[in-house]
Amino acid sequence: MINNNLIEKLLKQDRRSIARVITIVESNDYNSNEYLKEIHKNTGRAYRIGITGPPGAGKSTITNQLTKLYRKQNLKVAIIAVDPTSPFTGGALLGDRVRMNDIGMDSGVFIRSMATRGSLGGLSKKAIDAADVFDAAGFDIIIFETVGVGQSELDIAQAADTTIVVLVPESGDSVQAMKAGLMEIADFFVLNKSDRPGSQQSYTALQTILMIKDHDKNLWLPNIIKSVASENKGIEEIANEIERHKIFMAEKNLFTLKREKQTKVRIKEIVEHILKDKLWSQTGENSLNLSIEKVILGNLSPYQIAEEIIEEFKNRI
Amino acid sequence: MINNNLIEKLLKQDRRSIARVITIVESNDYNSNEYLKEIHKNTGRAYRIGITGPPGAGKSTITNQLTKLYRKQNLKVAIIAVDPTSPFTGGALLGDRVRMNDIGMDSGVFIRSMATRGSLGGLSKKAIDAADVFDAAGFDIIIFETVGVGQSELDIAQAADTTIVVLVPESGDSVQAMKAGLMEIADFFVLNKSDRPGSQQSYTALQTILMIKDHDKNLWLPNIIKSVASENKGIEEIANEIERHKIFMAEKNLFTLKREKQTKVRIKEIVEHILKDKLWSQTGENSLNLSIEKVILGNLSPYQIAEEIIEEFKNRI
Repeated sequence: MINNNLIEKLLKQDRRSIARVITIVESNDYNSNEYLKEIHKNTGRAYRIGITGPPGAGKSTITNQLTKLYRKQNLKVAIIAVDPTSPFTGGALLGDRVRMNDIGMDSGVFIRSMATRGSLGGLSKKAIDAADVFDAAGFDIIIFETVGVGQSELDIAQAADTTIVVLVPESGDSVQAMKAGLMEIADFFVLNKSDRPGSQQSYTALQTILMIKDHDKNLWLPNIIKSVASENKGIEEIANEIERHKIFMAEKNLFTLKREKQTKVRIKEIVEHILKDKLWSQTGENSLNLSIEKVILGNLSPYQIAEEIIEEFKNRI
Repeated sequence: MINNNLIEKLLKQDRRSIARVITIVESNDYNSNEYLKEIHKNTGRAYRIGITGPPGAGKSTITNQLTKLYRKQNLKVAIIAVDPTSPFTGGALLGDRVRMNDIGMDSGVFIRSMATRGSLGGLSKKAIDAADVFDAAGFDIIIFETVGVGQSELDIAQAADTTIVVLVPESGDSVQAMKAGLMEIADFFVLNKSDRPGSQQSYTALQTILMIKDHDKNLWLPNIIKSVASENKGIEEIANEIERHKIFMAEKNLFTLKREKQTKVRIKEIVEHILKDKLWSQTGENSLNLSIEKVILGNLSPYQIAEEIIEEFKNRI
C-alpha cells in the first residue's frame, strides 16, 4: 500500500515528504518498490553528477562549492553522500557538520547521507533509488558523493551522467587510483589541492597515464582540471567541464547508450536483491543453519550444501 | 567430469596439478564445484592468515618476510594475493616481480595472484576456493594478501584464522582504516614503517581508538606490533602474535564459532553465485535486453521489469 497523499506532496517538493519517501526507499521493504514504481514516470529530468576519489581528496568541499555555484543559477541541488562507515564508528560522518553549516540551511539544497553500516550490499541500489526520489521531486542537479574504494561506490559513481574523479597531489599516485578502477569511470579528473608542492608532477603523471590509454578520437577524452576547492578556485572550471561533457554527450547522442547500460545494471541489481530477500527469508536461514554443522563436521562440502539449499529454494520461489 | 588422476597428483603436491586445479576453480564452471566437493575431505589442516590494509602499507613485504621465516621452520606456504586491479592496467601486479625473485623460486612456496579484472563479484569465493586447493595439497600456511578497500577484500581477510591489518604512520589516520571497516576485522595490527617520523603519534592514535571500542575481558584484545618489514624488523614478533592468537582461540574453543560463521558466509556466497549464473544465462540476458528499451522509453519502471524477469525465472529455475 502506498500513501498517495505522500507522493502528491513529494511531487510538490515538500521537504518532509521527500525525507519520508527516502526513508521508506532506504528501508527496502516491498512497499519501497511500489513507491519507486509510482514515481518512475516523474523521473528523468535531473542531471546526475558523480563525485568520487580517495578519502581526503576534498570531495565534500568540491560538492559544497559546486552546490553554491548551482544555487546562484537558481538550480535546486540534492546531495547523496555515501560513506563506507563501519559499524564501529556508529556512522559518524565527519564532514557532515561542516557541510550543514555551509549549505544545509538553504531550502534549495537537500543532503542525504548513507552509510554502508549494517547494509548487506544493495547500497548502490538504495542510492540510485534515492536519486529517483529527488528527481521526481524536481531537483535539477543530483550529486552522488562517494569514496572510491569499493565496487558499490564505483557503481554509484557510474550511475551518474557525468562522473568526476577527484585526486590530490599527495595521494599522488594516479597508480593507486588506477588500481582502484577509478581511471575507467572518470569523465574528467579534478586535481584538487593543486597549490601543494608536487602538484605539477602529479598532473604530468596523470596526463601520461591518460595518454597510454587507448582512445578513439570520436570519443570523449577526459581532461584534468586543477582546483583548490577550499579557496573556491577551479570550481567554475569544474562546472564548465560538466557542461561541456553534457553537451558532447547530447550532441553525439551518447546518453541513450549510457542510460541503457545503467538501466541494465540497475535492473540486474534489483532482480538479484529481490531474489536474495526471498532466498534468505526465515525458511532459507533455517535450512542454512541446520546444514552448517554438517560442513563443520567435515561430512559435506559447502558446495553440496549449496545444492541442497537451491533445491529447497526451487520449491518455494 | 573430474580428472581423478589430477586430484591424486594434487594430493601428492605436484605443482603443475595444483596450478591446473586452481585454474579450473578460478574458471568457475560447473566442473569447478565438482573438484571442490571432491577435495573437501582433505581440507582443514592448513592455518590461514589474512593480511590486509591500505595500498602501500607494505603488505607484500610482510608477506614475503613472514614466508621466509615459516620456510626456516620447514612449513610450506601458499600465498593468495588479491589485487583489485582494473581492466585498464591489464592486471600488472607491481609487487609481483620483486616477490618472485625473493621467494618465488622456493619449491615450498606457491604464489597465486588474483585480480578483480573482469570478475563480476565472486572474487572472495574464488580466493577461498583456491585456499581449499592449497589446503588439500598439504600447504601448512595459507596467506591471503588483500588490499583492504572493498567488501570482497574484507570478506577474504575474514576467511582467515588470524587476520592482520597493516597500517603505516603516513596513511596515518587510523580513522580512514576505521571507516573502511578494517578495525573490526583485525586480530591484531601491524604498524609498519615504524621508523618513520610520526610513528609514535600514529601508535597512540590507534591505541586510543582500540580503547574506545567496547570490549569483553574474556575476549581477545587486538595488539599493535611495530615493524620495519623492509629491514626484517618485527617479523618474528608478528609470527609470535599469530601463534599467541592461535593458542588463545584454540584454548577458548573459539575456532569452532569462527568457522561456523565463515562457513555460513561461504555457503551463502556459493548459493547466490550458482543462482546468479542460472539467472543471467542466455535466456535471462535476452529477456533483460528486450526489457531495457521499455524502461528507457519511460513506460515501465525498472522495478516492474525486475518483477517480470523474476516471474520468467521461476519457470526455468
